[in-house]
Amino acid sequence: MAKRIFNFNAGPSTLPLDVLKIVQNELLDYRGTGMSVMEISHRSPEFDEINESAMALTRELMGLDDKYHVMFLTGGASTQFALIPINFAADGKKGAYVDTGTWSTKAIKEANILGGAHLAGSSKDNEYRYIPKIADLDVPSDSAFLHITTNNTIKGTQWHETPEFAGVPLIADMSSDILSRQIDFGKYAMIYGGAQKNLGPSGTCLVVMHDDLLQKCKDGNPSMWDYRTHAAKKSLYNTPPSLTIYIVKLVLEWIKGQGGLAAVEKTNQSKKDIIYGLMDQYPDYFKGTAKKDSRSWMNITMRLPNEDLEKKLIADAKAAGFGGLKGHRSVGGIRVSLYNAMSLEGAQKVAAFMEEFKKVNS
Amino acid sequence: MAKRIFNFNAGPSTLPLDVLKIVQNELLDYRGTGMSVMEISHRSPEFDEINESAMALTRELMGLDDKYHVMFLTGGASTQFALIPINFAADGKKGAYVDTGTWSTKAIKEANILGGAHLAGSSKDNEYRYIPKIADLDVPSDSAFLHITTNNTIKGTQWHETPEFAGVPLIADMSSDILSRQIDFGKYAMIYGGAQKNLGPSGTCLVVMHDDLLQKCKDGNPSMWDYRTHAAKKSLYNTPPSLTIYIVKLVLEWIKGQGGLAAVEKTNQSKKDIIYGLMDQYPDYFKGTAKKDSRSWMNITMRLPNEDLEKKLIADAKAAGFGGLKGHRSVGGIRVSLYNAMSLEGAQKVAAFMEEFKKVNS
Repeated sequence: MAKRIFNFNAGPSTLPLDVLKIVQNELLDYRGTGMSVMEISHRSPEFDEINESAMALTRELMGLDDKYHVMFLTGGASTQFALIPINFAADGKKGAYVDTGTWSTKAIKEANILGGAHLAGSSKDNEYRYIPKIADLDVPSDSAFLHITTNNTIKGTQWHETPEFAGVPLIADMSSDILSRQIDFGKYAMIYGGAQKNLGPSGTCLVVMHDDLLQKCKDGNPSMWDYRTHAAKKSLYNTPPSLTIYIVKLVLEWIKGQGGLAAVEKTNQSKKDIIYGLMDQYPDYFKGTAKKDSRSWMNITMRLPNEDLEKKLIADAKAAGFGGLKGHRSVGGIRVSLYNAMSLEGAQKVAAFMEEFKKVNS
Repeated sequence: MAKRIFNFNAGPSTLPLDVLKIVQNELLDYRGTGMSVMEISHRSPEFDEINESAMALTRELMGLDDKYHVMFLTGGASTQFALIPINFAADGKKGAYVDTGTWSTKAIKEANILGGAHLAGSSKDNEYRYIPKIADLDVPSDSAFLHITTNNTIKGTQWHETPEFAGVPLIADMSSDILSRQIDFGKYAMIYGGAQKNLGPSGTCLVVMHDDLLQKCKDGNPSMWDYRTHAAKKSLYNTPPSLTIYIVKLVLEWIKGQGGLAAVEKTNQSKKDIIYGLMDQYPDYFKGTAKKDSRSWMNITMRLPNEDLEKKLIADAKAAGFGGLKGHRSVGGIRVSLYNAMSLEGAQKVAAFMEEFKKVNS
């Protein structure tokens, strides 16, 4: 029996134990082939089934039709920060970006290297503690696209409404909240996310793109940077990260098996309510860093009364079997990441631990 | 006991069983952390040890000092086809390329999208059955670099000498023969290769680059496309494909455990001698497609007297426990891939099978 901790890492992060057990059981012989899944050809019927299933499950869970292309690319969201402007911000048209902290700041930086970005809104004025109001955004009607980061892993904020501007395709980096609750994915022209939070191991970036946007890709880019290459070849233009895609497919099956996004949302809501409930009970001890109306369901960030207490909580938690509670190195503090694979039990137990810690250390 | 076949796939390809068993054993709990290796943070001491070991082992096996940067990137060799010209073919200086078939042709295609390539040599005149002679190459002394593909998976050819042109940095795509024998890696300014043949699963591309070349990277590219980003951050600028890098590190340890490249070379030499020996014994039946002086040690390509026999051999072989013998879809025929992880026993047994097949089907 393998020892397992409650793992609150922000990414790479905890995965469903049932998925890991399947990977383990099939590792030397993938379903009677006599090969590991990582030893089979990406042109084989076995991998084709994995790839097709992963694409179909993505569409099914998102409630999208086949006007959306599903791609499993590489280079993480960080590569998308460059691919989006080189494909879509052509002919002098810029993308509009909302800056909600580290990751959107990075996306804007890359766009500026590649011809410029229009700043549609920002919460930098208050250390990115909130999501700007949609009514306050400045999105020119001729913008190439509007780019948002739906969940901000480091700052602990999340968009709870979808900004819509007629004629402006909406592009979202959903790396840290993809498939965590029900939203209208059909409002987005492009959704992308590194797999390493809600989808699987690191090593692939899911890109879901409406065909209308795909057709706007600029000509003249290298093959690997043109989304049309990957859409046409179903991510098999070159050798894909097949082991990673296989695990992503198992995670998608696991999400479906939980009851899809309706069920996942219900559990995620309960999990975040437990932690935020504790913080609201003791607001002078567990001091949330995000404004209440912008709180993330996925990454709950807080400061304790002082740094020594933070260090002690992280150390005591580790000893008690709760890992990954340290805030991002750029902001410090405590962060409780509650991705899909974290159980309700894990949230309950860490909350009980934190409450007890407060009693002992006040 | 898992069923295992002899897997002659050209990539993704067979991996050492000992490595797969370690992955399997550690899959739910990586060395007492209570987490799978794919669930741990890429900023943790555990992953840092994996990454540092993989870099150090690469240098050790190649006999290189720390003037060489070792990077584990993503996007495969196909992404390098674009990154090389955008970083090094600046200021009107072009790269010189030798075209030895499919993969070098693709590298040239991407260079042409990005400002042009100088054709230093080609074996297209004879269906890429040979490697051009070094004396016949046309490499202008002001070339930004010289690019070669050391082993040609599809055409079954391999460079057996290293081209050296004073003042012209040598860049090699070694995807399909990296770490398969002793060569003077110090003659190369840059070595790169997709992991999925000799190094591990697909999903990472090893890039080894001398610091002199690194310093020539052109300014103004997006962060992810500038090698200096990755060299400075030891491949951790963004979340790396950590599961894949972990397995690559285990494969590097396995190579070292075999006795390093001297021992691996000896085995690989014996393996290819067995198959080419059979072909030379029956040259009208097992008709090699590569010229003798250009034969690959890694991918042995041949045609049988007719296509029906080829189909029958592939089917009979599969039934007898030998997989992956079908030639690339672009050329047909039979291909015996003999990467490091294929055992001497596998080469002996498939040769015996082939000889028996000839006796029965002549």
